[in-house]
Formats: sequence, C-alpha cells, structure tokens
Amino acid sequence: MKITLCQINPTVGAINQNKKSIFDWYHRAVDLGADLVVFPELSLIGYPPQDLLLRNRFIENAKNALDEIAQKSTIPIILGNTMMEDNKLYNCAFFCEKGEIISHYKKRLLPTYDVFDEARYFTSGSEPFVVKVSINGENVYLGLQICEDLWDKNYSCDLVEELKAKGAEIIINLSASPYRVDRLLDRCELIQSKASDNRLSYLYCNLVGAQDELIFDGQSLAYNENGELIAQGKAFEEEILMVDVKNSQTIDLIDSIREEKIYNALVLGVKDYFKKTGHTEAVIGLSGGIDSSLTACIAVDALGIENVHGVSMPSKFSSQHSKDDAKLLSENLGIDYRTISIESIVSSFEESLKTSYNGSELGVAEENIQARARGSIIMALSNKFNWLVLSTGNKTELAMGYCTLYGDMNGGLAVISDLSKTDVYALSRWVNEKAGFDCIPINSIEKPPSAELTPNQVDPFDYDVVSPLVTALIDNQKSPSELIKEGADPGLVKDISNRIRINEYKRRQAAPGLRVTSKAFGIGRRVPIVNQFDELNND
Amino acid sequence: MKITLCQINPTVGAINQNKKSIFDWYHRAVDLGADLVVFPELSLIGYPPQDLLLRNRFIENAKNALDEIAQKSTIPIILGNTMMEDNKLYNCAFFCEKGEIISHYKKRLLPTYDVFDEARYFTSGSEPFVVKVSINGENVYLGLQICEDLWDKNYSCDLVEELKAKGAEIIINLSASPYRVDRLLDRCELIQSKASDNRLSYLYCNLVGAQDELIFDGQSLAYNENGELIAQGKAFEEEILMVDVKNSQTIDLIDSIREEKIYNALVLGVKDYFKKTGHTEAVIGLSGGIDSSLTACIAVDALGIENVHGVSMPSKFSSQHSKDDAKLLSENLGIDYRTISIESIVSSFEESLKTSYNGSELGVAEENIQARARGSIIMALSNKFNWLVLSTGNKTELAMGYCTLYGDMNGGLAVISDLSKTDVYALSRWVNEKAGFDCIPINSIEKPPSAELTPNQVDPFDYDVVSPLVTALIDNQKSPSELIKEGADPGLVKDISNRIRINEYKRRQAAPGLRVTSKAFGIGRRVPIVNQFDELNND
Repeated sequence: MKITLCQINPTVGAINQNKKSIFDWYHRAVDLGADLVVFPELSLIGYPPQDLLLRNRFIENAKNALDEIAQKSTIPIILGNTMMEDNKLYNCAFFCEKGEIISHYKKRLLPTYDVFDEARYFTSGSEPFVVKVSINGENVYLGLQICEDLWDKNYSCDLVEELKAKGAEIIINLSASPYRVDRLLDRCELIQSKASDNRLSYLYCNLVGAQDELIFDGQSLAYNENGELIAQGKAFEEEILMVDVKNSQTIDLIDSIREEKIYNALVLGVKDYFKKTGHTEAVIGLSGGIDSSLTACIAVDALGIENVHGVSMPSKFSSQHSKDDAKLLSENLGIDYRTISIESIVSSFEESLKTSYNGSELGVAEENIQARARGSIIMALSNKFNWLVLSTGNKTELAMGYCTLYGDMNGGLAVISDLSKTDVYALSRWVNEKAGFDCIPINSIEKPPSAELTPNQVDPFDYDVVSPLVTALIDNQKSPSELIKEGADPGLVKDISNRIRINEYKRRQAAPGLRVTSKAFGIGRRVPIVNQFDELNND
Repeated sequence: MKITLCQINPTVGAINQNKKSIFDWYHRAVDLGADLVVFPELSLIGYPPQDLLLRNRFIENAKNALDEIAQKSTIPIILGNTMMEDNKLYNCAFFCEKGEIISHYKKRLLPTYDVFDEARYFTSGSEPFVVKVSINGENVYLGLQICEDLWDKNYSCDLVEELKAKGAEIIINLSASPYRVDRLLDRCELIQSKASDNRLSYLYCNLVGAQDELIFDGQSLAYNENGELIAQGKAFEEEILMVDVKNSQTIDLIDSIREEKIYNALVLGVKDYFKKTGHTEAVIGLSGGIDSSLTACIAVDALGIENVHGVSMPSKFSSQHSKDDAKLLSENLGIDYRTISIESIVSSFEESLKTSYNGSELGVAEENIQARARGSIIMALSNKFNWLVLSTGNKTELAMGYCTLYGDMNGGLAVISDLSKTDVYALSRWVNEKAGFDCIPINSIEKPPSAELTPNQVDPFDYDVVSPLVTALIDNQKSPSELIKEGADPGLVKDISNRIRINEYKRRQAAPGLRVTSKAFGIGRRVPIVNQFDELNND
C-alpha cells in the first residue's frame, strides 16, 4: 500500500489557493501511483488561522472547498479542515474518496500553551477513530491522529493504544508542528516508541512554511512497526513523500548541524513572510556589526541579491571600521548599498530640543535620537520604494532592553530576534565557513560589540556570561533563584531578570520575530507589562 | 448576617503589597462589624497574571501569603488565589477562619475567548461547593462561584441550580470582570434572574483597577432572593460594601450616561498604568485636533494638572488654527505647554534623503517623516524627563491604518484607541458640558479632521459613515457581506475591510490600548498578519 504524505505550504486564509495546491499535489500523487494521499493539519485554511476561525464565512468557505475536493476525489485522500457541529467547532481530519466525504476524525488533544490557543476555538473530540481502506482487495485499518494527539503523555492518556485496541494497523498523523531547535529528535523519539511499543506503523505528515512568527519545517516521518525509520521528508521544503509501509528499506535519519538548521529555518521565515504579504524587496540598516551582517546574509538567501538593499547611516560617533565593515559586507554579498549620514538630522533634533533640554547632561535621550533618526530614514526608504524593513536585534539585546523603540527596533519582521548573542556568533561563523571566505567581515565578528551612540562606547555586557543567563531565564524558563543556586553571580542575575521584567513594554511593540527556540518573545510568551513580581525582592 | 464585599485594587505580581492591602481591608471590615469578608477573584496576585502563573515561585509565594492571611484570620474570609494540586493549577476561592484554611472551591468555567486565556493555565474544577458558616449560632449555607461561573448559560449548564440543590442559600461570586460599555446591565440582568429563579441571594464582588489593557470597574452587586438589588459598589473606586442579606432595603441601580462611564474608565486606566509602572508625568503631542485634546483632558483628570505636559510640534503645513487650538486647550487645562517646530528637522531628513529619492513624486514617505520627527521629539522628552508618552489615536484611525507607525503611534499607553471617532466626538462634547465651558476648543470639535501633512489636507474619510461601519465590523463582528446586505455601500465596505486586514501589522506594534468596548484591538483580538482571507474576493 502506497501512502503519499504531501508536506505542503499553504497560506493562512487563502482557501481557494490552498485548495488548488491540494488538487495539484493530489493529482501528482495519483500519477505517481499512490493508493492514499495525506495532507497536514488544517492544510486547507493554513495554520494557525487564529481569530479567522471566529468568522462564519471563513468556516463556510472552507467547508465548500472541502466539499469540492471530496467531489473530485478518486483514490482516498485525508486532509485537515475545521467542522462546525451543533455550534461547536472541531479541528478535523476528513477521509474522502470516490466523490464523497466518507468520515471524519475530531482532534482530541488541543494544545493551549506557548504559541498555541486551540482551546480558544475548538472543542475536543472524545473518540478514537479508525477507518478501513480497501486497496486492491486488501483491507487496511488506519488510525487517525492530529498533531498534539501524538504528545499524549503530557495529558496522562495513551491515544495510540486506544487506536490499536480498535484495530488500527497504521497510524497517520496530520500535523502543523512548528520548528524549533531539536524538535525533530523529540518527534522521532516519540514516534519510534509509539510504533514499536504498539507494533504498528506510524506516518507523520507535517506542514511546511512560515506564518507570522512561526516556521513549519516539514520533515514528515514514517516508521514501520519495528519502530524503524522508513521515510523522511525534506526540511523547510514542500515535498511529496511516497511510503510503502510493508515494503520499505529502513533509512538513517538526516539531521543537519544546529547552525545550518536555524539558518535555513530563518531563510524560510523571511521568504514566506515576503511572499505571503506581497513584498519582494527588503532594506536593512547595516552598522558593520554582526547582527545586521547575519540578517543581511539570511535576507539574500531568502530573497535574492537583487532584492536586498543595505543602508549605512553613520553618525559622528561611527568608527571608520564600522563604515568599512558595512561596505565590505555589501560588496561580499553583492547587494545594493548606500550611505546616508544622520549627522545633520541629529544636529537639527538637538538644536530644536535645546530649549527643552535646558542644559541637562547628555544621556539616553541623545543616544536614542540617533537610533530614531536611523529608524526614520529606513522607514522613509520603505515608504518610498515599498521595501520591507528587516530589523536586526538579537534575543539577548531584546531581553535586556538594549535597543531603541521606534529606532533600531523598527521593522516589519525581526529576523534574528530569537537568536541569543551566542547563536548569532555561531551562525555567523558557520555562514563564513559555508561561503568558504569571510563573507561577514572577520572584524565584525571579532571586534567588541558597540551601538556607537557615544564616543568609544561598547556594549555594557559581557555577552559570554549574559547571553547564556538570558537563555537560561527565557528559553529554559529557569528562575533567578535557581540560577543563583547553580552558582551564577547574584547581582548579575538580579540585574538581568529585572531588565527583562521592566522592558516588557518595549517587546510588546516589537516587530514579529521568527521563532526557532522553545520559548521566543512574542505570542508564546504572555507576560504583563504592569508586573511587580520580583522573586529576588521577596514578592 | 453582615457580609462585606471588599472591591479592592491589587497589582499584578505584587503579592506582598496585595496581602497587606487585604489585611487592611479585612481589619476595616472587622471593625465595621462584619460577619464575613469577601475579596475578588485572584485578588492576592492580581488579574490577569498571564504567564506569571507558569512560574513556580510565583505560585509558592502566593500560597505562603495565603497561609499567612489564614493564620491571622478571626472571622471568616473568602478570597481568590491559585492552588497547585497533582501538578495541576486551579483558580480557587479559599474559605479561611480562626487561623485556618477551612476549604476551597475550584473554579469550574474557565473563560478562553476574547481577552481571556484561562484554559492556558488552569484546570477546571468539577464540583459545586457549598460551605456552612455559623454566625451567632445561626447556620448559613454559602455557595461559591468565581466570575465566569455566573455566565453558565454559555456553557449549557446551570451551576446555580446545582448549588441550590446542595443547599446554598446565598451565592457569593468572586469576580475579576473587566469593564466594557453596558457590561453592568448584562451582569445585573443575569444575577437578578439567577437570584429570583432560584430564590436565593446573590452577592457579586468585583475587582477594581487597571491592568495593561484591561480596566476593572468594581460595581459589586448584591441581590436578595426576590431578585431585588440591595447593594451596589461604586464604579472605578475601591470600596467596602456591607450587605445584610436579610435586612436590607431595595435600592435603585446607579448607572451613569455612556460618555461619563467611558471617560471615568479611561481616567482609571491611565491612573493605574502610571501608578503601577512607577510613572508620574505624561507628555502628549497636541495637534489642536480633537483626539489629542480629549486625551489631554483624561490625562489631567488621571494625573493632575502639574503632571501633564503638552507639546505642539508644528510643520510648515500646520494651520494657524491648529497652533491656536492646541495652545488654547493647554491654557484651558492649565498644563505645561511648549512648541517645538519640526520644520528644520524635516528639512534635514529631506536633504539627506534627496539622493535616494532621486526626484520621485511626493508621497506617503514625505508625510510620514513629519509624523516620525514628532514621534522622535516626544520620545526625546520622554527619555530626558522620564515622562511617559500617551498616544492619541482613535479606534477608527487604527482600524483604517490612518496613522504612522513609529510616528504618531508612539507611546507607552494608547488612551483612546478603543474609541470610535463617533465616541471621541461624543466624549469631547460631554467634557465641555461637564466643564461648563469649551475646555476643548469648539473649533477642535467642529473643524474637518486633518493630519496636516500636505497643504490643505483633510482626512480622506467621511467619519459619519466610516466610523459606524468600522464599529460594526470590529465591535459587533459583522461580516462585510452582512453589512452590504444591510444596505452599506459595497465599494466602501470592501475598502474598509481590506484596510483593516492589511494594517494588522501596524496594530501589532501599537502601544497597549485601554479597552472599553466588547472587542478592542489588542490581546482580545488575535488576527494573523499574514492573512489572505478576503470574503468579498471569494476566498
């Protein structure tokens, strides 16, 4: 029995376009001799559709599209869509063949944590679902699952066991599982144990593509009843994956190194954000530093050299090496590059504000004016030429609030906002290794990081220490007390956790950022702005 | 039996401070002769605590504070806090007396819609809860509920009936119910029917205070078993409300007019945001228009004349009447006022960008530079003097995207972002009526609205038509097709709904805005940025 997993890249809300795409892939699968074609979770409407699910017309249009797909079906097709029943909405897998919707399965486990809000929209199904498929006179019993159903351990139940008890021989899971580092191995380990523990094949069909902050990585998987891998879909690409459950060789899992995976995830994130919002060209402020350099590399791989514009916006505090490094990077990448000085603009601001400032000492106001002058220039280019601004801040900075709201935080998409400073270094080195030369100028990597907003300024953090501590607090969700107990400097931990807390207001107004870790700033982390909880102050 | 409802104003995360406040109010109630003292939902930790609930130390510290309150209790106290049991978190009401926690009730209905995310954190309780209280030898049976439990019709169950069946004579509901226009009447109608249908008294103790976007209005209520109102707490103020269930006169409901309610809600919203984030002074860009004028009035009532700073930032397109109106408003309010021209700054930007613009036609880039120059000036004042910027955009503008990101959208708090242009006019007229003179210059109210970013520009909308259509689409969640069916101009509806859709990216980076309607932009409305659903384009 040849089961085809189509890991496709739908667009949220584009029901007609997604329907056409499903038809295309379905016909391709039929042409390839498939007996059954599978599409990911909610692939007809895109994931996550968020509050579009509250619009009746959205649900109705998707239902009509599903009916059309069913009507035109020949061999069996299983795909994800919603279903409204008794005024309740379900996240379903529909089984269609020979012109009809034969049956459907209602997702049982609804993730409602981190970036997921499924309990906001859906009612849980309560029944395991097994469907009989007849292929060339042979009957096969398929148990269906949708995404979170696989992670049943977290809900103290065993849904695969229930399916096995109902006679399932093969489990098919329709997923929309967002990428994060090492997620592939989590999935493999779990599916492998489900398959071997229950002596059944497990096929996992995952979505590809980016949607706002989320990146879906594909990497569909098939395990045989011995818990051996027999098929694996590509990472970050649409693909059709033919699986012959009974007659497949076992294969080794393909998994790239961390830097490559993250880099490729971000490339897809940028590419899809542009494609799906109707943009083509990007503009990036290039400071000569490592963050903007890495962002430019990712943008070039996502959009093409001809679609990326670099802008250097030096002030009187900008060092010659910064200007040189930014220019060199642009030459290395071969992108459009221009220099627009902010000196006269900053002088105009200072002159206009002099009376109000009334001789006060220089401080953060004067520093931020520079960042905001740059932010306004880059937005002017964006407005004039319809270039989308990519912001270049990293996660460590964003955590510490070491960034200027309405200045360097400006942008439609934050490309590396989920990368720690440590990861920014690692990826930059990897970029150069891959390129075979110092595409990102070695000086950008090796010089002390600086915002260059005052004379001879350098960033007031030892990133070798601060970056891992931020990662521990945010990604690993450790508490400040735990870190201190583990030996971290109490004063530093207190300072960092306080900065994270009081800068929530900046992050609330940040551009959406591509998520690659287990806990990113953004929709998966909902911390109040008004928040006086400081555990180290005995609150 | 004298039951005291304490509608208090806790701060999210400030467990120690909230505990002290609960002690203060408890002792006041005891001194007043109370037999039982009631506090609102989660009043020990503040509402909504969002992801603070995922931190163990937060839950532990709150538990310790609760233990301390219980230990020091004499007469019965009922208050809201969380409880962790078997690794599950519950939203609970604790009944304590004579030094002990006697029992607890687990909230059954967990709102997970609009601004609520309770299923993200809590497990539902499954049992009705009735507690016997002995006062002066008399036994009274109290049925406990927490907030959403009251709205059981939406969940196809009748929790009050269950409590009645278990012997409850009085229902006590601990709430954290956010304000929105006409919410009071919804609550009254529902509580009245619960009380009279089941022949029992119903006491409703609601939180007061603002938390980020949400404003809690207090207005606690008590109904006797005939469904008659016997007590009502003040709106938008802390209060101790003594209710003698058996011996109370019936009273008439006090409800102000719409404009007054909304205005007072926003005043509390501003006041608490400042107090709870440690700010004192505000700065507002005054254009001479109605939006910034109304915002300034609210700020003055929230913070005091001495803490509000007005800034006029004229350009070469600013009319004399705009400058005059802004100045007159400031004089009427008696606030600090200054003028900082943006002309030379804008010239510097234009000069610096000339080469890049390369002779292109004037357009939105040139308009936005003006808004961003203003945005940077006001942020410079904010940085220099620690004044918090209040942004002044209204909901209609924000829906249409008729606002400049990193320009006039700059601010720590958006005061009137949930008011339609229609409401802005209504509230402004009410402000003048209340003041007894044209505090907001009549010219600001009567002149055609204009952003004044090009010569003789006026806003390209007929707000009399557009404002109600936006309200219908957002607040009332009507679909474009419905509006057209009801007779609205199809071209206009298509334009408006398209603008709402494509400007989601701006709103994602907007300042948090105070919510006063049934559906505000912000955490209660989760619409994807990448969103190709356009029902009028047959998607």
